[in-house]
Amino acid sequence: MTILTVGSVAYDEIITPFDRRERALGGSATYFALAAQHFANVNLVAVIGDDFNLADRELLANHQIDLTGLEQVPGKCFFWKGEYLANWNDRITHDTQLNVFEHFKPKIPDSYRDNEIVFLGNIHPTLQLDVLNQMTQPRVVALDTMNLWIKETRTDLLETLKHVDCLLINDSEAAMLSGHRHLIEAARTIADMGPKTLCIKQGEHGALLIRGDRIFTAPAYPLCKVIDPTGAGDSFAGGFIGYLAANPDDSFENLKKAVIYGSVMGSFTVESFSIDRLASISQADIEDRYHAFVEITHFHG
Amino acid sequence: MTILTVGSVAYDEIITPFDRRERALGGSATYFALAAQHFANVNLVAVIGDDFNLADRELLANHQIDLTGLEQVPGKCFFWKGEYLANWNDRITHDTQLNVFEHFKPKIPDSYRDNEIVFLGNIHPTLQLDVLNQMTQPRVVALDTMNLWIKETRTDLLETLKHVDCLLINDSEAAMLSGHRHLIEAARTIADMGPKTLCIKQGEHGALLIRGDRIFTAPAYPLCKVIDPTGAGDSFAGGFIGYLAANPDDSFENLKKAVIYGSVMGSFTVESFSIDRLASISQADIEDRYHAFVEITHFHG
Repeated sequence: MTILTVGSVAYDEIITPFDRRERALGGSATYFALAAQHFANVNLVAVIGDDFNLADRELLANHQIDLTGLEQVPGKCFFWKGEYLANWNDRITHDTQLNVFEHFKPKIPDSYRDNEIVFLGNIHPTLQLDVLNQMTQPRVVALDTMNLWIKETRTDLLETLKHVDCLLINDSEAAMLSGHRHLIEAARTIADMGPKTLCIKQGEHGALLIRGDRIFTAPAYPLCKVIDPTGAGDSFAGGFIGYLAANPDDSFENLKKAVIYGSVMGSFTVESFSIDRLASISQADIEDRYHAFVEITHFHG
Repeated sequence: MTILTVGSVAYDEIITPFDRRERALGGSATYFALAAQHFANVNLVAVIGDDFNLADRELLANHQIDLTGLEQVPGKCFFWKGEYLANWNDRITHDTQLNVFEHFKPKIPDSYRDNEIVFLGNIHPTLQLDVLNQMTQPRVVALDTMNLWIKETRTDLLETLKHVDCLLINDSEAAMLSGHRHLIEAARTIADMGPKTLCIKQGEHGALLIRGDRIFTAPAYPLCKVIDPTGAGDSFAGGFIGYLAANPDDSFENLKKAVIYGSVMGSFTVESFSIDRLASISQADIEDRYHAFVEITHFHG
């Protein structure tokens, strides 16, 4: 199955407790696509400015990501400057420049309209719905969002969520959206809004999957060194959705494996700045780490 | 095998976002012993004041906890007043009265000296070493501590740790003790101090076990309602050490199961105020929840 994804392609300036990087290729759709392409065909819908490096376009193309939907317009790429503090949990945004993203209206190429899986990255919920309305009849629709949209555009988001099968957010966003701090209650409320499957991204604490009365938890991979956490959640989404696209099976058991592949892809991303590690891993690296997850989580029942 | 444990037996005043309870039976040794007695014989060493309720003594005795080492002296029991904020993660201590605990010098009854497993609850490291010096030759020594002792009595703690096999602490304490934020590096440094096994308690995020190059992660049990988190970590320790006492096998596989039993016992404790739920569960409740842990963590390798 082919995945259509919409989101940001950006340049980041990243400061960590140990190092910094300027003009690092980033954006939610970049990480998502580079992770998902290990599993399935990925069609990318995003906007870039005329400052986008040819080398970065080639990097994406060389990873078999279809760029027909990557619109280039005059202006500068989306820019984010962030800093991670010594505890790695707190992140300060120093600067956000929407640039070409400000007037982004996703146009879905005809060749993308019958894609079976749609991943709506974290953009305005009305744009997410616009994308969905241009699709023929996707088999699975998944959506990521953030506190800004939950707070400022709640009505729009609730409208979009009616058409969504699977919601991927973090725990504070799940609490904000549902009004419940406890995730099982949150999942019940969110299921009534539309998404029957809730995948809670918990960063260094892993991920939680809830569908109906079934629950599954996955840890984050315990790493010796974290270099740059940027994009870990988007890479998780890419592994998760990518696996589901390659293995179209609605069983909860299949969803569990998708969560582990999500955790695998997120774990690679934090091992380097930007997309460096994510863009250089092999299929064997992915399978090795999947088996490492078996090792660190399984016990005799 | 029989477990000797030393720690506090206390009365707590607990305020949660939804309710409050005064003069609730608490203390680290109370929770530990009530959890561990489901698995093995428990000998309790602690001090209480003359205000200790006869009903509470009977409750402990009725759970087959040996109270020969429970010393009663004039004065009041250790008292703690704490409040949990709406996010449940932040806890404010309103009052701590050491009372009879201030001059506590643990005296190990002769009948306890050859106990095979020693759990040194969170008290001054010099007192922990005093207890150890009174024991014949325990097979396994486990220790809990806290930021106060790591900061204020580091030299004493390092001396005590030389004699410890297994350290149970939370992640910020592991970072403080080792100087490493990343837990794998922290575990290596702590192994050099003495404890070859490190069990990191992460509250609502579960637990992490590290020994040498082996790692295991366990989630917390996803609960619909949290009533009172007090004692969850001590109950975890009781389940963990209790299981090891009942199943004396040094394999990592066995340690993994101990971690799950720890998580099981911690999960019961938070379902009620004080020891109410922990003191009323059956062996079948424990096994049912163990199997629920299998369900929420296992996936096809």
